[in-house]
Amino acid sequence: MSSTLSTKHFLGAPASSDGPARIGSLHSSSTLPSRSLHLPARRSQSKRLEIHASGNTFGTYFRVTTFGESHGGGVGCVIDGCPPRLPLSEADMQLDLDRRRPGQSRITTPRKETDTCKIASGIADGVTTGSPIKVEVPNTDQRGNDYSEMSLAYRPSHADATYDFKYGVRSVQGGGRSSARETIGRVAAGAVAKKILKQYAGTEILAYVSQAHQVVLPENLVDHETVTLDQIESNIVRCPNPEYAEKMIAAIDAVRVKGDSVGGVVTCIVRNVPRGLGSPVFDKLEAELAKAAMSLPATKGFEFGSGFAGTFMTGSEHNDEFYMDEDGRIRTKTNRSGGIQGGISNGEIINMRIAFKPTSTISRRQNTVTRDKHGTELIARGRHDPCVVPRAVPMVEAMVALVLVDQLMAQYAQCMLFPINPALQEPLELSKNEQAQKSL
Amino acid sequence: MSSTLSTKHFLGAPASSDGPARIGSLHSSSTLPSRSLHLPARRSQSKRLEIHASGNTFGTYFRVTTFGESHGGGVGCVIDGCPPRLPLSEADMQLDLDRRRPGQSRITTPRKETDTCKIASGIADGVTTGSPIKVEVPNTDQRGNDYSEMSLAYRPSHADATYDFKYGVRSVQGGGRSSARETIGRVAAGAVAKKILKQYAGTEILAYVSQAHQVVLPENLVDHETVTLDQIESNIVRCPNPEYAEKMIAAIDAVRVKGDSVGGVVTCIVRNVPRGLGSPVFDKLEAELAKAAMSLPATKGFEFGSGFAGTFMTGSEHNDEFYMDEDGRIRTKTNRSGGIQGGISNGEIINMRIAFKPTSTISRRQNTVTRDKHGTELIARGRHDPCVVPRAVPMVEAMVALVLVDQLMAQYAQCMLFPINPALQEPLELSKNEQAQKSL
Amino acid sequence: MSSTLSTKHFLGAPASSDGPARIGSLHSSSTLPSRSLHLPARRSQSKRLEIHASGNTFGTYFRVTTFGESHGGGVGCVIDGCPPRLPLSEADMQLDLDRRRPGQSRITTPRKETDTCKIASGIADGVTTGSPIKVEVPNTDQRGNDYSEMSLAYRPSHADATYDFKYGVRSVQGGGRSSARETIGRVAAGAVAKKILKQYAGTEILAYVSQAHQVVLPENLVDHETVTLDQIESNIVRCPNPEYAEKMIAAIDAVRVKGDSVGGVVTCIVRNVPRGLGSPVFDKLEAELAKAAMSLPATKGFEFGSGFAGTFMTGSEHNDEFYMDEDGRIRTKTNRSGGIQGGISNGEIINMRIAFKPTSTISRRQNTVTRDKHGTELIARGRHDPCVVPRAVPMVEAMVALVLVDQLMAQYAQCMLFPINPALQEPLELSKNEQAQKSL
Amino acid sequence: MSSTLSTKHFLGAPASSDGPARIGSLHSSSTLPSRSLHLPARRSQSKRLEIHASGNTFGTYFRVTTFGESHGGGVGCVIDGCPPRLPLSEADMQLDLDRRRPGQSRITTPRKETDTCKIASGIADGVTTGSPIKVEVPNTDQRGNDYSEMSLAYRPSHADATYDFKYGVRSVQGGGRSSARETIGRVAAGAVAKKILKQYAGTEILAYVSQAHQVVLPENLVDHETVTLDQIESNIVRCPNPEYAEKMIAAIDAVRVKGDSVGGVVTCIVRNVPRGLGSPVFDKLEAELAKAAMSLPATKGFEFGSGFAGTFMTGSEHNDEFYMDEDGRIRTKTNRSGGIQGGISNGEIINMRIAFKPTSTISRRQNTVTRDKHGTELIARGRHDPCVVPRAVPMVEAMVALVLVDQLMAQYAQCMLFPINPALQEPLELSKNEQAQKSL
Repeated sequence: MSSTLSTKHFLGAPASSDGPARIGSLHSSSTLPSRSLHLPARRSQSKRLEIHASGNTFGTYFRVTTFGESHGGGVGCVIDGCPPRLPLSEADMQLDLDRRRPGQSRITTPRKETDTCKIASGIADGVTTGSPIKVEVPNTDQRGNDYSEMSLAYRPSHADATYDFKYGVRSVQGGGRSSARETIGRVAAGAVAKKILKQYAGTEILAYVSQAHQVVLPENLVDHETVTLDQIESNIVRCPNPEYAEKMIAAIDAVRVKGDSVGGVVTCIVRNVPRGLGSPVFDKLEAELAKAAMSLPATKGFEFGSGFAGTFMTGSEHNDEFYMDEDGRIRTKTNRSGGIQGGISNGEIINMRIAFKPTSTISRRQNTVTRDKHGTELIARGRHDPCVVPRAVPMVEAMVALVLVDQLMAQYAQCMLFPINPALQEPLELSKNEQAQKSL
Repeated sequence: MSSTLSTKHFLGAPASSDGPARIGSLHSSSTLPSRSLHLPARRSQSKRLEIHASGNTFGTYFRVTTFGESHGGGVGCVIDGCPPRLPLSEADMQLDLDRRRPGQSRITTPRKETDTCKIASGIADGVTTGSPIKVEVPNTDQRGNDYSEMSLAYRPSHADATYDFKYGVRSVQGGGRSSARETIGRVAAGAVAKKILKQYAGTEILAYVSQAHQVVLPENLVDHETVTLDQIESNIVRCPNPEYAEKMIAAIDAVRVKGDSVGGVVTCIVRNVPRGLGSPVFDKLEAELAKAAMSLPATKGFEFGSGFAGTFMTGSEHNDEFYMDEDGRIRTKTNRSGGIQGGISNGEIINMRIAFKPTSTISRRQNTVTRDKHGTELIARGRHDPCVVPRAVPMVEAMVALVLVDQLMAQYAQCMLFPINPALQEPLELSKNEQAQKSL
Repeated sequence: MSSTLSTKHFLGAPASSDGPARIGSLHSSSTLPSRSLHLPARRSQSKRLEIHASGNTFGTYFRVTTFGESHGGGVGCVIDGCPPRLPLSEADMQLDLDRRRPGQSRITTPRKETDTCKIASGIADGVTTGSPIKVEVPNTDQRGNDYSEMSLAYRPSHADATYDFKYGVRSVQGGGRSSARETIGRVAAGAVAKKILKQYAGTEILAYVSQAHQVVLPENLVDHETVTLDQIESNIVRCPNPEYAEKMIAAIDAVRVKGDSVGGVVTCIVRNVPRGLGSPVFDKLEAELAKAAMSLPATKGFEFGSGFAGTFMTGSEHNDEFYMDEDGRIRTKTNRSGGIQGGISNGEIINMRIAFKPTSTISRRQNTVTRDKHGTELIARGRHDPCVVPRAVPMVEAMVALVLVDQLMAQYAQCMLFPINPALQEPLELSKNEQAQKSL
Repeated sequence: MSSTLSTKHFLGAPASSDGPARIGSLHSSSTLPSRSLHLPARRSQSKRLEIHASGNTFGTYFRVTTFGESHGGGVGCVIDGCPPRLPLSEADMQLDLDRRRPGQSRITTPRKETDTCKIASGIADGVTTGSPIKVEVPNTDQRGNDYSEMSLAYRPSHADATYDFKYGVRSVQGGGRSSARETIGRVAAGAVAKKILKQYAGTEILAYVSQAHQVVLPENLVDHETVTLDQIESNIVRCPNPEYAEKMIAAIDAVRVKGDSVGGVVTCIVRNVPRGLGSPVFDKLEAELAKAAMSLPATKGFEFGSGFAGTFMTGSEHNDEFYMDEDGRIRTKTNRSGGIQGGISNGEIINMRIAFKPTSTISRRQNTVTRDKHGTELIARGRHDPCVVPRAVPMVEAMVALVLVDQLMAQYAQCMLFPINPALQEPLELSKNEQAQKSL
């Protein structure tokens, strides 16, 4: 996927030093320096470069539209359909935005943005009003150089070429191009969704890095019943196991100094999820989660429960037997179902893994073609994330939260008009006592 | 996931022969026969058992609503938004329905259904009219026994329990429960979508089994540029490599005779896909494909392009360099992007892999609880698919086709009102000449 | 609008004897000149004639898809998203279907259909399961003649021509054409919606005929606080005032015997509507009601509250002042707002009026053109509704109910997750005591 | 409807001096009894007053989300799904925004806003990029006083009370309340839609005032074939007939000086509309237009074609006979169908009429209740529109344009993948020659 967490800046030198990239002879197969397309360094980029506004809407009941571009006022989102009377302030969002922002550590892009959010509408006297909530994050790391050269070369594994194919207009200027900065709106909206879920049912959504390049965290080293946000946030790679965190950081550092990048995997779990979320056919809960996760930039795969590994098992090994727990609740002894059966949550921990490719922006020479169909070479220089997964952690949490709150509202609309059937159902929300107990 | 390709029939005997399952003492850990819940065999099931109608809608432009149940008139779908003037008949759908139907080989469920479809509306004089197309498949393998006992025990890793949690009413009778039979409507609609794509742009969608239990087909043994439907259909497991097909069949046979089941993986490719399908933010093409695939029963994971394996690579290894091909088209040398960059198709082959868990229905004794919260044992007997992947092949193709035709129509709505920009875009449709050439 | 309640049968002769429309002597009891296109009478029509399946979906939360055609198995609907655990049976729907069916009186079409419905899925043990509810009504008044001649002439003010313009295929056969029979599915689904609203909040939806041709029922003759279904159903035109009912029936009879038709107006009121339904911007409650009503065949206008008459007033005459009633509720002294302010219901009676044009099918000679663009004359013969409004009454009620239940579910999804604010809000549902009181 | 074009400012005094509504001497020039609630005049309002952000989305293919509030940065819209490569600039929108803005004449509110728009994203090099287009209009007429008193009294026929009923939080501050200012985003988006329709098919959408209070423009005084924008814009009330324009202005002036308001009617026509737009069942073109129009503030009714008057006719009087015109096109001799038959456009002029109630804000003493349920009197003072229809003209055009472009894109998606059938269909777009001819 072309839209990565990198800052997507390229360094090169123009074909001649006195003007914008003159590329020399067409279709030249030579390897002369003059054939190499040198793009200006990031610091000196033009305002036109970063116009990649791309808005769109996610969700049916809790609808999030992200908007914005890197060069103008800023980025953000509009949340439509939020429940009224929910206490909410910028602080609720800032925590996750800080986990997402660039420049937070040496293994993320050094680009500096504070990503300070402002709620522009939808809140009065500290509570939501039921009106659309508009959240804005101003841009502070503006750049001021002409970037027209960049538009000439299609960056490998980015969206440059496909945007042109689709829209027939240049994407770099004026929009279209997906940027990691677009995910700010998702993270802000996700924070609202998380707060609703937490307040409603004590639901906790936690993601962490379980693989960076070839460092794979063994599954049994993290207890999904007890892992905490603090453990995850205790190191810059967001792996709750300190030993493997160090290994991962070392692996990222190793490629970072070479100007290369690596991929990784984010694991996400949900505890205290209400039973009964999701629906049985096309809109299965796992299908919604897969779409949500795979809509993040740079994703390559999604699995939940036993995942791809489960395909190697037999049914008798794989099935989750039911039993009654001490509290008289129907539970499963194992959780290869990943908390979802028949498209509907069963109350067990939902777990999933999302694969992220290595960042497409690298400081290495690459062959490519220009927009007008000539071969060229490209060397990006500047700032990019050597590995996207540490910053992807809050993005994954946000998308999962958006799916769950949407499904919770769907469940309310369809199934809560009339009293529940206590013989078969439990209340969706936990009492305060239960929440307290569960969080012990 | 609880909705499997199995026929979901259980054999047992009531706790006492003179009445519906009396299960004896609560939470008893004993292994006495009387505690075991014997359910009636499939042949003798009641009509009420198989009422698991579940309709829902997929797609925005090309909208498919599936309906139906196993016990009544039949199952099928309504396709809304189909282009008019498309030649279409039942034969177009029957091919794929035959690939999906039970009883087609010894490694599928022995249940007998011919699954003969009938187009009930939307066609006149052999072409589509633009009105909704209703496709129906009558049920022929009716069953006639009382199944009320079954409703007592939650089958492990099925949807029985979660339906109760969600809806608060019993799902076995009267609906709700997802059945593999629901996918008939998907396959029928997918056949229409395939025909549109084929006729419009020469697009070909082909899926095959790339793993069954622990038999993994090496990637390099199938050439995605040339693999054909005939090769895939040359054996009952739908693996285009005859040697590995035999190994897979043997693996499935091995568990089949034990009453157990195994999982597997389906690979799907798309050739001649128009460039420019998909969109850049939430509705990325890979996100739509992931949702579509993961909405099939028994799925556990989805990956495309380099997938989870790509996370182990560096950016310099992973990036797909661009070049100009002989026809003056912009192409990529490698295809780790899986035909999709920035959420939008780039014209290269789209490839994806979908994980399917082992069938939940097995003829083994399992512990579970009853609906009224008592522990019990359960032995299913009867007919089920020992491995779902051979029959899942046409289902995957159908869901992929539904996504692509929806995106093609979306592209038409947004980007085709005015003439394309030939400097950046190619026509979406192939000329007849090009189609002929490409199919050589 | 072209889709009327008529039976749409025509008699005529081709414009010229040498054209493609040579029909011969079929049923030609007339002595018309050869330029007149003689179409066979209804009794002897072919099966191909009445294939006008047209499915589509209404609603966001409570989604109704209608399907079906007059020639095949029948017509009906699929209701997706219905709350589970609602007692429901065919009898709940049959009452309204009987009010809708043809042949119910001398002022409706004499076509005979019993329109007996059957619930095919979504119900178990007498309650809804949360799964899609499929309702089917078989066709009993089949016809058996070749209708290909009819396809030659565009019937004035019908949909024949516009279907051809849109789809480029012939609509009479194979679908496309909207038929009054399509509204069966709406009425069946509306009956479910009515039941939910009644059970949830004691909401009552009542429509009646307030104008037939030039007979206009004075507004002050019906008390919207007390009018009952029995009063409305006490006569065949469905006007609750007996004196005006007689006048209306006489007016309809007067045109009926001449083979002509007349228009009219249906008034609809809603009592005990929960406060707070609707939303403030695009999806205002009146906007949703307008769309719902105007989607019925033959409608020409919609107004609510003071309506078009209100445009002649001043603000000081028109505003509804607030006061506190005896029960401590905020009420309005007048109701020119029609129960809706700012797009949201205020708890007062919602009232609206819907205009229906005269039935397009008439037994009079009319000029028109054939499909292949030749002038011709057309005489329809057979059975049609001389005035659609008596049968439109239950259709209007159904569409209003669908809007309100959809909005109730929307309100639940967004605003009912957390406890209401009793200082500003009242419970949406009435207690049983209140319902009893209100219904006194 | 409560959301009017007024500026919504009130003067009053609390119901009792010892209650929560102690306001002191602010602007209290009146000598009203202590039960009258004196609210501060508009000039001195607080920033908190005007936070009535309300965003929402209209359209399926061409999706418009409006956002914004009067107190913050401004208002505007996000347009998602716009075709790429359309030349577009702020000037395209400013024309209609100027027709909508307050302070444009003595018969509109004297509030001053220039409503200068800025396109913040989605445009590059003067053409649309296919990315979301964000349009912003800054607020310039800020106000700076405390408005908390106003929150005490429910203004008659406004949305104050219903917002409280729905959301349970105060709507004046922080959002929720629909404001006429919200329609800025609609008008801006409508201008884009108009441009697409004009460029695509020469389609022209023109609205004008056909009634103001009791001055009714006779139908035969405007020729819908030839009426021009210049004629409509030749006077401040936007009536194309100069004589009646003067009468209307006089009627509005008469109530304006008394602090009262009047209602009126806007007529809208569409010329050169492509044939085949709309669909046959729930989404009939007239149903979509009705919803669009009725979603505007202060609307009370909608009719098209023969409208309510058509109900007084017989079928033989009402039907539109077909004939072949000189260009070999199928036309209707009369147009009581209003350009729509069976839910689908037939190419004739679409005409419709929309009723607007008298502005709710008046400078007259009115009885009402406070939020805490005490009776009070209310006198609004300040600036409001004495009649909304002159400013509603561009709003109606905008909503009609949004419906038509959405339907055009729908038609493209479904019916234009394959070549049209020239025997039945005409190209949707006019050739340049035809456009030139038609505009002569």
